Amino acid sequence: MKKALLFFLMIAISVSEICLAQTGQVAVSSKLAGTAHPSPYNMYGARYPFIEADNRVTFQFNAPDAQKVQVAIANVAYDMTKGDDGVWTYTSEPQDYGYHNYWMIVDGAVVLDPATDGFIGYSHDCNGFEIPDPEGDFYDLKDVPHGDVLIKNYFSKVTDAWRMAFIYLPPGYEKSTSTRYPVLYLQHGGGEDQRVWIEMGRTNIILDNLIAEGKSKPFIVVMETSAATKPGEAPPQPPRAKPAGKGQGAQGKQPAARPRFSFSFDTYAELMIHDLIPFIDGNFRTLSDQGSRAMAGLSMGSMVTTSVTLPNLDKFSHIGLFSGGTLAPDQISDKSKVKLVFMSYGSRERGSEGVKAAADLLNQSGIKSVSYISPLTAHEWQSWRRSLREFAPLLFKN
Amino acid sequence: MKKALLFFLMIAISVSEICLAQTGQVAVSSKLAGTAHPSPYNMYGARYPFIEADNRVTFQFNAPDAQKVQVAIANVAYDMTKGDDGVWTYTSEPQDYGYHNYWMIVDGAVVLDPATDGFIGYSHDCNGFEIPDPEGDFYDLKDVPHGDVLIKNYFSKVTDAWRMAFIYLPPGYEKSTSTRYPVLYLQHGGGEDQRVWIEMGRTNIILDNLIAEGKSKPFIVVMETSAATKPGEAPPQPPRAKPAGKGQGAQGKQPAARPRFSFSFDTYAELMIHDLIPFIDGNFRTLSDQGSRAMAGLSMGSMVTTSVTLPNLDKFSHIGLFSGGTLAPDQISDKSKVKLVFMSYGSRERGSEGVKAAADLLNQSGIKSVSYISPLTAHEWQSWRRSLREFAPLLFKN
Repeated sequence: MKKALLFFLMIAISVSEICLAQTGQVAVSSKLAGTAHPSPYNMYGARYPFIEADNRVTFQFNAPDAQKVQVAIANVAYDMTKGDDGVWTYTSEPQDYGYHNYWMIVDGAVVLDPATDGFIGYSHDCNGFEIPDPEGDFYDLKDVPHGDVLIKNYFSKVTDAWRMAFIYLPPGYEKSTSTRYPVLYLQHGGGEDQRVWIEMGRTNIILDNLIAEGKSKPFIVVMETSAATKPGEAPPQPPRAKPAGKGQGAQGKQPAARPRFSFSFDTYAELMIHDLIPFIDGNFRTLSDQGSRAMAGLSMGSMVTTSVTLPNLDKFSHIGLFSGGTLAPDQISDKSKVKLVFMSYGSRERGSEGVKAAADLLNQSGIKSVSYISPLTAHEWQSWRRSLREFAPLLFKN
Repeated sequence: MKKALLFFLMIAISVSEICLAQTGQVAVSSKLAGTAHPSPYNMYGARYPFIEADNRVTFQFNAPDAQKVQVAIANVAYDMTKGDDGVWTYTSEPQDYGYHNYWMIVDGAVVLDPATDGFIGYSHDCNGFEIPDPEGDFYDLKDVPHGDVLIKNYFSKVTDAWRMAFIYLPPGYEKSTSTRYPVLYLQHGGGEDQRVWIEMGRTNIILDNLIAEGKSKPFIVVMETSAATKPGEAPPQPPRAKPAGKGQGAQGKQPAARPRFSFSFDTYAELMIHDLIPFIDGNFRTLSDQGSRAMAGLSMGSMVTTSVTLPNLDKFSHIGLFSGGTLAPDQISDKSKVKLVFMSYGSRERGSEGVKAAADLLNQSGIKSVSYISPLTAHEWQSWRRSLREFAPLLFKN
């Protein structure tokens, strides 16, 4: 009878429906640096993207009837070469350390390779691969106490809609039931959402490791999406069909000048002040004073951060801008409120040249400021992982 | 100076890099039933897949240079029609209620549409769309107390590797710090992983709603991946390149006979007994007695469930098989241990015809059993959401 059950189940399950291996957070490891290996985000059994020992990346893609196939790495398209078997191949130049978005272009259509996990970026789903950093053990999963990542739905009166936040609770939060913690609100970049600081940013792992080493105080991190419109409010201009591969991409190059557009983060600021912060302070053991609340963001998230914090310095004491411009002393209305302005860039980014001078100006005006340049990284995740590693130990020291 | 910052940021942000709207868990709503609307998993501004008022689905895909484009819905390929503007269109027959996987086939290449969230299925990343069920408010987000979904990394000695679990903690877990809870271990199907019971299954929302209505006891749910190999152990045969669209698909049809293959869940059973269950009982306020531990799974996850529970009836009291065969009395070595065997199918599935008789046999032999047939659904998520709704209220009543 048991055999009959097994037989039934076996014929009912497709050969392809084999269970998947662990990918993502648990598979990334700095120990892979200098070795040839499938990218850790690949689906079970998928060899490509394949990371070569020298950090070149080999892509393969099966498209026997296609006339042209390209792979777009961080929004720059590269032609692949068709083999006799209909499989297209491309091996890149050595890539920078860390996470990179990619996608495929098949006969002009922007598509995704089904063989990797999906990651949000560029306002659409993306493929991803990871180059191990020999000094990347600060984001390796280790045998240290681990905090929790919560997916939390809550209702916003400002937008009259349900919202989703990702929340990091530091190690010990669960057991030390009387301890209260400061809070960092951490924003994604343009075309991303609340998932990215966990999925690509490895925030939980970076903070677990820093806390275990005694380098950072334990604090809560709240990750939400700055997309927010009130009922009846027109949303920002939707993204147009984008000629992928025509940009110059992130890595080692300057973005081309792009058309200006305008939108505001006023609704998100209102949502944070009236819905999100009260929800967090009401449902978690937070320290809710101004000195215990920080906000930071990457790229567009820096603009969100300044839009929310500068008019609300009674609520925020620590500000972080990762690859998102600088602050000048005259932008800060009450210097006594600001405990820290942290500003960082990847060394390959436009903007990196001015960040130290901007920090010097703030320090001279009596506002504590720290700058950081991530060596040999672009407008990509490795700059932001490292920025978080540098920023976190500076928080809530007062 | 602030204007200079804004200007810099604006030119640095691509038009396409607009922030995304909320999708996924928070956007699905039974109130959309009978209306025409973009699928709730679409990226911000993406109109397609577009759900028509009669549950047909219109797909559009921009591929001006392609010779042939198909959309594969639940693994059945349909030809799209090219417009003069290079945009391909297809409108389907009315689709069953609930979540459906789809993907694109561009000149023979299996690819994903970047315009929706990515979902794991068929051993690769998939696109998804959702047909609202007029009676689907049991998985609508409501203003009731909400539990938490945790993403938890832990180390397995059995596999000598880090693992990731999704864990649902019921409403009140955080605040009632002395209450202990029973635990359901809930398994994904073939080609899926630990995310699916949240992302497509809406487990947290279904249980929040059942608990709020007093229909279900609060309990913890642990979702892990049955893929598990020991160091040096050969993994199961990797999936071969699959001729997508050649299967007959799930909806309303029988799957074709498929080649048999063999693999075992022995390593996962060992991991559960030696690593996962001790980790859960050691880190959460569980009731760890046999009567307070259940296991269930969908499709292949039912096979995982029987593989783990039947040899370990000293540890499990409640068993659920969703679209994954039936149990016979002689498979259960100690009838006194089993408090419940729940077996269910979608009415469109092969297997549904025998499930009530199998439950009758178990009941006649003194083993409490309940069967359920989900009306007008196939081997897809709506069968399993409804199965969970029927199963949960039966758990831990003794």
